[in-house]
Amino acid sequence: MKKGEEGGEVEVSLQTLSKKMDDFAKARDWEKYHSPRNLLLAMVGEVGELSEIFQWKGEVARGCPDWKEEEKVHLGEELSDVLLYLVRLSDVCGVDLGKAALRKIELNAIKYPVPKETDDHCVGDGEHSSGNIKLNEEH
Amino acid sequence: MKKGEEGGEVEVSLQTLSKKMDDFAKARDWEKYHSPRNLLLAMVGEVGELSEIFQWKGEVARGCPDWKEEEKVHLGEELSDVLLYLVRLSDVCGVDLGKAALRKIELNAIKYPVPKETDDHCVGDGEHSSGNIKLNEEH
Amino acid sequence: MKKGEEGGEVEVSLQTLSKKMDDFAKARDWEKYHSPRNLLLAMVGEVGELSEIFQWKGEVARGCPDWKEEEKVHLGEELSDVLLYLVRLSDVCGVDLGKAALRKIELNAIKYPVPKETDDHCVGDGEHSSGNIKLNEEH
Amino acid sequence: MKKGEEGGEVEVSLQTLSKKMDDFAKARDWEKYHSPRNLLLAMVGEVGELSEIFQWKGEVARGCPDWKEEEKVHLGEELSDVLLYLVRLSDVCGVDLGKAALRKIELNAIKYPVPKETDDHCVGDGEHSSGNIKLNEEH
Repeated sequence: MKKGEEGGEVEVSLQTLSKKMDDFAKARDWEKYHSPRNLLLAMVGEVGELSEIFQWKGEVARGCPDWKEEEKVHLGEELSDVLLYLVRLSDVCGVDLGKAALRKIELNAIKYPVPKETDDHCVGDGEHSSGNIKLNEEH
Repeated sequence: MKKGEEGGEVEVSLQTLSKKMDDFAKARDWEKYHSPRNLLLAMVGEVGELSEIFQWKGEVARGCPDWKEEEKVHLGEELSDVLLYLVRLSDVCGVDLGKAALRKIELNAIKYPVPKETDDHCVGDGEHSSGNIKLNEEH
Repeated sequence: MKKGEEGGEVEVSLQTLSKKMDDFAKARDWEKYHSPRNLLLAMVGEVGELSEIFQWKGEVARGCPDWKEEEKVHLGEELSDVLLYLVRLSDVCGVDLGKAALRKIELNAIKYPVPKETDDHCVGDGEHSSGNIKLNEEH
Repeated sequence: MKKGEEGGEVEVSLQTLSKKMDDFAKARDWEKYHSPRNLLLAMVGEVGELSEIFQWKGEVARGCPDWKEEEKVHLGEELSDVLLYLVRLSDVCGVDLGKAALRKIELNAIKYPVPKETDDHCVGDGEHSSGNIKLNEEH
């Protein structure tokens, strides 16, 4: 964790969270429960709770503008639960999640190169590029 | 991201990943696809791919000792995919994920206090504490 | 499976699917892989593939009217994959899924009773009932 | 639903469940909430609850022999919740789930043919076939 300059936002690293989760488990003698598949299923459980927040809402606008404050807090908790189990799962599997994530972003950048800027006069080319960017990011 | 001292491990912050994901989407004009529920379903898709890695393996030991190098790399990629969509989802919902995660760890510490050390002579108290620590972390 | 009358729709029972899945596993000597948690994770994998179909679509209208025929076929396959693993999981856990599902519908009917018809003149009562029906079915 | 002969097991068809779910929604004026993505997320929520049952258990033996009766009942309820939303999702998407599932089993049988019986004297061939059957069913 790095203190933001001039009292600003605090940066939170994956290593910090990983360390905190490890300390938490050790202090409670919970390491014996933290096998990879136990943690994976626990994470799936949290993904379910996160999904429940969104399940009857129909399409939700960016920023969740109409949500009550308590819903936003609840959302933050469920997002965190998924994150914490994900961090813990990575840790017990011996994966450096931060490093892996940076590498994955680089791989994605190669897989999905930024569309070239078209010349000013090249009207109509937008349609072609929009065809490309509709591609599923994963397939 | 903070450079590790003396060429050591690099710390990766959630803010760094969030910023990179935002730049990535903007450069490809993909922001229009990144609504909360689209990203949530994309994340569920990645959780599925992560689960597939573990699906026929039976119980997996901590550290995944018997896995081939390529399986470990693949695991790192799927863990990252879940993380990146989770970070992006938090961002478009206006949630500061790092801050929320630190707060959630504190709430968990209150909900599951560290069992008190028993006196040296207090043999047998282990059973009582083991009753406590078997508690599901979420229920 | 019951033949529909006059060549109509064929009814497919959960028992039929369960039996077919069991025969399928036995014929391939796959029973050894079909432990409860293996099957559960396999099902989560299929839920992920199902979610991928919906991930970049924004809100989808009932009946999926704008989908291409091949998308509908793909959707049917992924819905089936989830179902088949669910049926198999229930079977290896010793749960009679059909019986359990009928019982669950009855429990839901008790938990969420049909709102009473209001008298003809009772204009405005709709708001009250709409308060009720917004209830999450699960919580 | 077909009455089993001589008071035996009752067969439960997907059509029966689909019809019951439709009646249930209509009677409560819930159809407006049952869009495909709402139901999909609700199903993911139930998959999460199902996973929670298995999350801290380590490997579970077939038949869940050590589980208490109340755990088995709870398991049946969560398996049912996943099924009921899956059936409802299929219905609002216009997919005949029973028909699709039978077709998928046939496709799987083509994709994963039953290994040929080896001649009695053909010792050692088992290793080769076991190599094949370890294949992930989906990839």
